[in-house]
Amino acid sequence: MMRGKFIAFEGGEGMGKSTQAHLLRDYLEKRGIEVVLTREPGGTPGAEAIRDLLLHPPGEGWGPQAEALLFAAARADHVARLIRPAIEEKKWVVCDRFIDSSRAYQGIAGSLGDHTIRRLHEIGSDALLPDLTLLIGADTHEVEKRLRARDGGSSDAIGGRDDYYHAAVNSAFEIFAEKEPGRFVRIDGSGTIEEVHSRVVAAISPLFETTAS
Amino acid sequence: MMRGKFIAFEGGEGMGKSTQAHLLRDYLEKRGIEVVLTREPGGTPGAEAIRDLLLHPPGEGWGPQAEALLFAAARADHVARLIRPAIEEKKWVVCDRFIDSSRAYQGIAGSLGDHTIRRLHEIGSDALLPDLTLLIGADTHEVEKRLRARDGGSSDAIGGRDDYYHAAVNSAFEIFAEKEPGRFVRIDGSGTIEEVHSRVVAAISPLFETTAS
Repeated sequence: MMRGKFIAFEGGEGMGKSTQAHLLRDYLEKRGIEVVLTREPGGTPGAEAIRDLLLHPPGEGWGPQAEALLFAAARADHVARLIRPAIEEKKWVVCDRFIDSSRAYQGIAGSLGDHTIRRLHEIGSDALLPDLTLLIGADTHEVEKRLRARDGGSSDAIGGRDDYYHAAVNSAFEIFAEKEPGRFVRIDGSGTIEEVHSRVVAAISPLFETTAS
Repeated sequence: MMRGKFIAFEGGEGMGKSTQAHLLRDYLEKRGIEVVLTREPGGTPGAEAIRDLLLHPPGEGWGPQAEALLFAAARADHVARLIRPAIEEKKWVVCDRFIDSSRAYQGIAGSLGDHTIRRLHEIGSDALLPDLTLLIGADTHEVEKRLRARDGGSSDAIGGRDDYYHAAVNSAFEIFAEKEPGRFVRIDGSGTIEEVHSRVVAAISPLFETTAS
């Protein structure tokens, strides 16, 4: 029995991941595919409750270990309660951020190490990976412009970190994409929303070839 | 520089761990020792927020992986923000439950495996272990009587699990104590509160020998 496809959008802040995920959902639905659009951290009642703790920490803020464990816990719930059941029911899952965000933010920029984050993903979610990971990238100048255009910028516990942190995140994503060319496709994030969307559509087209029944 | 001692109470539900932890705190304070009395899951604002999610799960309840990750996250915060700073300041820490509860509940009774729980403890808390772990035990008949004597018994997401689960927890604690005789002391939980307390006092007395300056 064919299962559904699992597509994740990745990239730093202000890249238009969420907008592109919505447009991809609409595009797939027009092709008659049942789609579950979701996001991380979150996507299920349990994971959304953890998201709230992550973005608005009680007390002094989370240390790197606690933060990585909370992300892995949210993902475990999301995978077990939503993502796996959906792809088993032949639905396609479009997810705004997944494991590579934990690898880039907590593993590389947060210095816990990629091995530790991958080990947590094995324990929590049996190391589930997307069929395709779309990395939306843009040059640094473009990213700064977009972040400034947001209302006051991001002020939560993670989006609000300093420029060095976000530069490390972007470099980490580039390295992951280089190391796993089969799973990653880099999407040029410059130009209009529609231009980026048409690049996304081109990138996912190989997935249809493997779903013909 | 001498550091403080870290003592954990362990055992199944209804063993009087919390009562004995309070009495031990009072006893140590009378001897002029500065004591931090704490509990798991919880003990810090972050860990208490996670405790609330664990005992009252949103949605369908946590799967075993998410539950183990949440316990490890709460412990990471507790260790980093409270336990390690306290013992470095030469305070003694008396904790109601610690890593061995995760090993017994999530590892053995919950079937994730002891190796996985220990790995999470390495990642989250650098594998910190108590100087002494007091395992309060009683025969099955005694435990049942105590649990029934509680107001309506425990009805949270963990205390409220079935008898087989709690039997597995108790066996797991016994095995841990057998394997690490240097760290564990078994305390007979039968008799009056005062009788058990005097056994606790006898069990911790070797810790004083190593703190004479």
